[in-house]
Amino acid sequence: MNIAIIGYGYWGPNLVRNFFTLEKCNVACVSDTRAERLKLVNALFPSIRTTSNADDIFNDANIDAVVIATPVSSHYQLAKKALLHGKHVLVEKPVSRSSSEVSELIDLAKQENKLLMVDHTFLYTGAVQKMKELIVKGEIGKINYFDSTRINLGLFQPDMNVLWDLAPHDVSILNYLVEEAPYSVNATGVSHAKNGLENIAFMTVNYQSGLIAHFNCSWSSPVKIRMTLVGGDQKMILYNDIEPTEKIKVYDTGYNVRTDEDKQKILVDYRVGDVFIPKLNMEEALASMAKDFITSIEKNRQPLSNGMRGLTVVKILEAAEVSIKNKGMEVLL
Amino acid sequence: MNIAIIGYGYWGPNLVRNFFTLEKCNVACVSDTRAERLKLVNALFPSIRTTSNADDIFNDANIDAVVIATPVSSHYQLAKKALLHGKHVLVEKPVSRSSSEVSELIDLAKQENKLLMVDHTFLYTGAVQKMKELIVKGEIGKINYFDSTRINLGLFQPDMNVLWDLAPHDVSILNYLVEEAPYSVNATGVSHAKNGLENIAFMTVNYQSGLIAHFNCSWSSPVKIRMTLVGGDQKMILYNDIEPTEKIKVYDTGYNVRTDEDKQKILVDYRVGDVFIPKLNMEEALASMAKDFITSIEKNRQPLSNGMRGLTVVKILEAAEVSIKNKGMEVLL
Amino acid sequence: MNIAIIGYGYWGPNLVRNFFTLEKCNVACVSDTRAERLKLVNALFPSIRTTSNADDIFNDANIDAVVIATPVSSHYQLAKKALLHGKHVLVEKPVSRSSSEVSELIDLAKQENKLLMVDHTFLYTGAVQKMKELIVKGEIGKINYFDSTRINLGLFQPDMNVLWDLAPHDVSILNYLVEEAPYSVNATGVSHAKNGLENIAFMTVNYQSGLIAHFNCSWSSPVKIRMTLVGGDQKMILYNDIEPTEKIKVYDTGYNVRTDEDKQKILVDYRVGDVFIPKLNMEEALASMAKDFITSIEKNRQPLSNGMRGLTVVKILEAAEVSIKNKGMEVLL
Amino acid sequence: MNIAIIGYGYWGPNLVRNFFTLEKCNVACVSDTRAERLKLVNALFPSIRTTSNADDIFNDANIDAVVIATPVSSHYQLAKKALLHGKHVLVEKPVSRSSSEVSELIDLAKQENKLLMVDHTFLYTGAVQKMKELIVKGEIGKINYFDSTRINLGLFQPDMNVLWDLAPHDVSILNYLVEEAPYSVNATGVSHAKNGLENIAFMTVNYQSGLIAHFNCSWSSPVKIRMTLVGGDQKMILYNDIEPTEKIKVYDTGYNVRTDEDKQKILVDYRVGDVFIPKLNMEEALASMAKDFITSIEKNRQPLSNGMRGLTVVKILEAAEVSIKNKGMEVLL
Repeated sequence: MNIAIIGYGYWGPNLVRNFFTLEKCNVACVSDTRAERLKLVNALFPSIRTTSNADDIFNDANIDAVVIATPVSSHYQLAKKALLHGKHVLVEKPVSRSSSEVSELIDLAKQENKLLMVDHTFLYTGAVQKMKELIVKGEIGKINYFDSTRINLGLFQPDMNVLWDLAPHDVSILNYLVEEAPYSVNATGVSHAKNGLENIAFMTVNYQSGLIAHFNCSWSSPVKIRMTLVGGDQKMILYNDIEPTEKIKVYDTGYNVRTDEDKQKILVDYRVGDVFIPKLNMEEALASMAKDFITSIEKNRQPLSNGMRGLTVVKILEAAEVSIKNKGMEVLL
Repeated sequence: MNIAIIGYGYWGPNLVRNFFTLEKCNVACVSDTRAERLKLVNALFPSIRTTSNADDIFNDANIDAVVIATPVSSHYQLAKKALLHGKHVLVEKPVSRSSSEVSELIDLAKQENKLLMVDHTFLYTGAVQKMKELIVKGEIGKINYFDSTRINLGLFQPDMNVLWDLAPHDVSILNYLVEEAPYSVNATGVSHAKNGLENIAFMTVNYQSGLIAHFNCSWSSPVKIRMTLVGGDQKMILYNDIEPTEKIKVYDTGYNVRTDEDKQKILVDYRVGDVFIPKLNMEEALASMAKDFITSIEKNRQPLSNGMRGLTVVKILEAAEVSIKNKGMEVLL
Repeated sequence: MNIAIIGYGYWGPNLVRNFFTLEKCNVACVSDTRAERLKLVNALFPSIRTTSNADDIFNDANIDAVVIATPVSSHYQLAKKALLHGKHVLVEKPVSRSSSEVSELIDLAKQENKLLMVDHTFLYTGAVQKMKELIVKGEIGKINYFDSTRINLGLFQPDMNVLWDLAPHDVSILNYLVEEAPYSVNATGVSHAKNGLENIAFMTVNYQSGLIAHFNCSWSSPVKIRMTLVGGDQKMILYNDIEPTEKIKVYDTGYNVRTDEDKQKILVDYRVGDVFIPKLNMEEALASMAKDFITSIEKNRQPLSNGMRGLTVVKILEAAEVSIKNKGMEVLL
Repeated sequence: MNIAIIGYGYWGPNLVRNFFTLEKCNVACVSDTRAERLKLVNALFPSIRTTSNADDIFNDANIDAVVIATPVSSHYQLAKKALLHGKHVLVEKPVSRSSSEVSELIDLAKQENKLLMVDHTFLYTGAVQKMKELIVKGEIGKINYFDSTRINLGLFQPDMNVLWDLAPHDVSILNYLVEEAPYSVNATGVSHAKNGLENIAFMTVNYQSGLIAHFNCSWSSPVKIRMTLVGGDQKMILYNDIEPTEKIKVYDTGYNVRTDEDKQKILVDYRVGDVFIPKLNMEEALASMAKDFITSIEKNRQPLSNGMRGLTVVKILEAAEVSIKNKGMEVLL
């Protein structure tokens, strides 16, 4: 299978490296509008063709699939063109800032009988796979809350706020771990830049069942925190992505709320027990994601991180943007 | 000076112990409606009189000041009675769930020429005092954000939600460190108990200057986190109250946002420098608070943690409760 | 049962408090040669008699048992007198700096049919109890090494080096966890004080089976570390006593050394698996120790921390002192 | 300048990558006896010549300098040959297991007017450079102790014990930070492998001034610790190499030992102050080391990590091996 990669910026080199080493897959071409980026490709991978014009890729009948790693605003047009030229598409997250564009791409892919996949790499990490496994087994019980903090001294993106930049990771994890669909979103934030794009933002995602999900995102923290709590009514998980190996701690901890016989007062039973740190698959997540793309094309199946997953993430972030602009008002999904 | 303590529950013993060892101060009486609690007082402090009726304290002309450590719902009536009986009053936080009651108590105290003080103990910690000192000196610069997390597996309070229980600490610190008055509040939360009181809640406090303050409070976390980030445009502070001694880390870290000459794109300069962990005064904060109460009465001055500080905290939490009930809507202060 | 406590210095108050609250036990008397220390006893425990002369205790026929918490150099004489006056004895660690004195006390106790117990409090902690339980169950396998670090900025003791001060804790734990008797000791150290007593010292304890135990003790560290690794051929334990609750981590980690068929090179199989943090009994260890003393007297049984355990600790430290004086030479036990 | 690299095992790829990207330096050839290793070189660096015979390198008059990254036992013969063929030599640590061989190589290099350098990479890290800077400035004062722990679940080396494998890092740091020459060494250890090579070992290095240095090395720990304490009489440093950025903490902590007027007892003044975490140069240490090699050849100067430094490390480890074999006996240097 011949693939091409469009965009060789921050993430592009990782994509090229991973697809390059993948079996059954040949990286035929890389495109970027910047000559100096293409020079880097030539130096490291003399066997890969380069072009400054993505149309060369679309028009090349030998290319089966395209990976789009350009700025978000160009994703929709490039993905659409690729699908219309009969190519399978893997696009970086978020697919687009507009959920209707994502829906259109999903429909188009179906119509063209091609794959549309989104690179939500975190779904392929050993940590997230282990959490999913524990939840599916029923060890965690009904999930009551999801609380994620992703903050550091990060690059202010010129074209999107911190939620669009950082939250796709955590929202994709939330959507993967939880089957229930959320019904509304609240968000607040602040911009310390002239362009009005929030560099600090907070989001709450609400569910009918009583599950609450919260996201704290910032480009302005002196310390790097990548931490998520997943609280079930059986056990609770602390997922600390900064830890080199002990990323997941499973607490046999809980509370059981009941009312007394007279229903006069609540009684809460607390339980604090052992903690378990499962061994994780430490394979590079991006390699697994790349493999899923290639294999899904081969077998004509939907990948884990398919277009629908991308759509759910975009819908939530779209709602968050509306909420921030409306002073934290609840926005229904 | 003779003082009496009303309420010998969770916090009462700490108050008795601290006032007992304070010079110029005699703990004359402790009241509680539960006989078994008074027995504990008798065993440990045979010299202290006990009573099950707080009126015995109000009617005792020898008692100069009263400390109220009962459930919140009783604070207002007890404080009012105490003031009307000519006693100085120290009341546990929050003063009341109603800001109009707090205002009334402040007015009454002024009228009776008595002291009304609130026990926001954290203001007296070495950590908060050091942060205030650094801010006053100008080392931190203009404060851009305040982000606090206070979560653990905590007792579900039967009469108030988690914000009323835990956030007074952090809101009092915020109000102390920042001179500017906030203009609005958003809050979201969820209750996993039958009584509908939120056990997990998130609050954003908004300021005209672009400062944003955020609070994450939970009784349902398997891990105990007590962490606050204070971000200035010169330096940033990480305040980790779990650390036994290194509670405050000052990061010489920042970003400077500017637009380029064509005002086409933003440019952000990042700075990462040394980190400084100042030595803190490790004196028990409650002892300093007790001393401030006694000295302020003696010198007829306002204490650090005065009634107005208590009022500001209550106003913010009152607004948060309205916001939660109105699905996260912004509530003006 | 009436007990008396001799010595009310650093540890005495903890002993008094724990025995005071123990059932079936009456703290009848406390002695100390310093009047100001006895005043503290009078203030906190008006019901306890005090004396500056320990002989008052020995001569009091109503006193059944004596707890000795004086400087180490006086332990032997006081314990001997107490046993000769027909009292059971609990003595602080180390029992003595001379193993022959300890042996003599053990013999005397047997002869007088009284109990001789040593306060190796750590044996009663939830952490050490859990490690013992795991080892007895066979989960850890054959123990290959024990490596303990106990360092902080500590008080230079005027009459003994840092090993005599700090290592009794860890050596008593080692002796409890490991059944095998060690055969030799090496130790090195340095004194930065004029009196020549080492403030930093390192000790290795050697076993025939290939088990090695190592101790790093210092009064001169800017950071406080209380950490022990116990490596078995099945699993390994990290015991970090600084952690408030997660003190014990059990690693399903190991290596299996074998030679290949030609015996030409060694092959080592490595295994890294899950980590398990067992819930620990958080009861105060000193209370359990006190209870063991009282119950062992009542039931005429040997306590966990009996005289023989005290002797083994003293023998090892005695050998370490000889080794340090002889430039690290191996000293047989 | 043309250089060749002999040995493309674990460390070789790092050396090739760093020298490859270095200016004024051309990696002309890589040799290894294993064909599959050379294939890797060909794939990644098609411009580099490869050979299975190191003699091709020695006999190539165009090659100016040779980097030796083969097993330790072959270092001496290869370095000698290279010097005799008129090449500058950079050799991996330890240079040899025999100090007389190292001395011979130093003499030979001087005679041939070529450079002999050892790759003690750690000397070029930002952390070690910062510690040296603080010590030279006098901020730390007289160094009283150096205590290093370097343990993890590591590969059992087939031809040398854990001290020869891990301690060269820490001993080279010690020798760099401390000007004084040590006078003796004690070491103990144990082997859990059939070949009798210690997988756990402890070493003390003694100095006339009262400085003591201690090393704890293990391939058998379930946790990875890379920590060194450097205690001066002014300040103390904690160097934790596991920390991603905050590797160095400088404690304004100390103790001052003095005797009272009657010289009857010692008095120790303790001081605990601020902690300072300096920003470190995060440049890759190996790149700086490679640059020092090339520049030192160009300018005909001695590099930081010169042959004499390599010799001091080997002498200490040689003595440690003798001490272990003699049951911990002190071995004079």
